[in-house]
Amino acid sequence: MISIILVSHSKKITDGLKEMIDEMVGTSDNVKIFSAGGTDDGRLGTNPIAVMEIIEQCQDDKHILIFADIGSAILSSETAIDLISDEKLKEKILLVDAPLIEGSFVAAVQALVDDDLDAILNELENI
Amino acid sequence: MISIILVSHSKKITDGLKEMIDEMVGTSDNVKIFSAGGTDDGRLGTNPIAVMEIIEQCQDDKHILIFADIGSAILSSETAIDLISDEKLKEKILLVDAPLIEGSFVAAVQALVDDDLDAILNELENI
Repeated sequence: MISIILVSHSKKITDGLKEMIDEMVGTSDNVKIFSAGGTDDGRLGTNPIAVMEIIEQCQDDKHILIFADIGSAILSSETAIDLISDEKLKEKILLVDAPLIEGSFVAAVQALVDDDLDAILNELENI
Repeated sequence: MISIILVSHSKKITDGLKEMIDEMVGTSDNVKIFSAGGTDDGRLGTNPIAVMEIIEQCQDDKHILIFADIGSAILSSETAIDLISDEKLKEKILLVDAPLIEGSFVAAVQALVDDDLDAILNELENI
């Protein structure tokens, strides 16, 4: 199982993106998508605690890929990773250097076929 | 004035992105952002007619930049451009080869400073 966490200042963006991937790529036992945009109360902003809590739900997954769009969405994702104390869990996390929508979409499509991390990263190179 | 048109299968994505740019970059006399995601009735899908109608509203602008995310959002944008018969208007349009969120955000920030197209495209190269 691969988990993909979507991080943006906007909850509408990450909710819409999760919906789009779930509908267009389809749900499967290989990929789970999490929307982690916006602040706690739905305003524009980021929330590293929310990202950290999602990571902690993914203990049993093979890989946890985080996609973030701009500036502090990337910083918040880095903070969330820093907050994880379980080293085994931490090793599974990758903050992916790819555009949020295009990257997470391609990763979900590839993960559906094969949950090998190198294969996913390889597909992301072609964006 | 630069107009930026956001195209995706998801209206939530383009509405959220317009909100994010309007709030974070600020509104100005230099840049206008249009959300053109989803179908006519708000489902997941694209609508070239809606994109074409937005283009037609931008007759008096200096440049019209379209950002689209994946697959048929890009195709729909191309169809919308093909539907424009006014050659003078058509010349102002550019379907930008950049990621939707990161690209439109950077273009809006740069357009706020300077509405020169080369300067904007130059900033987009650095994404």
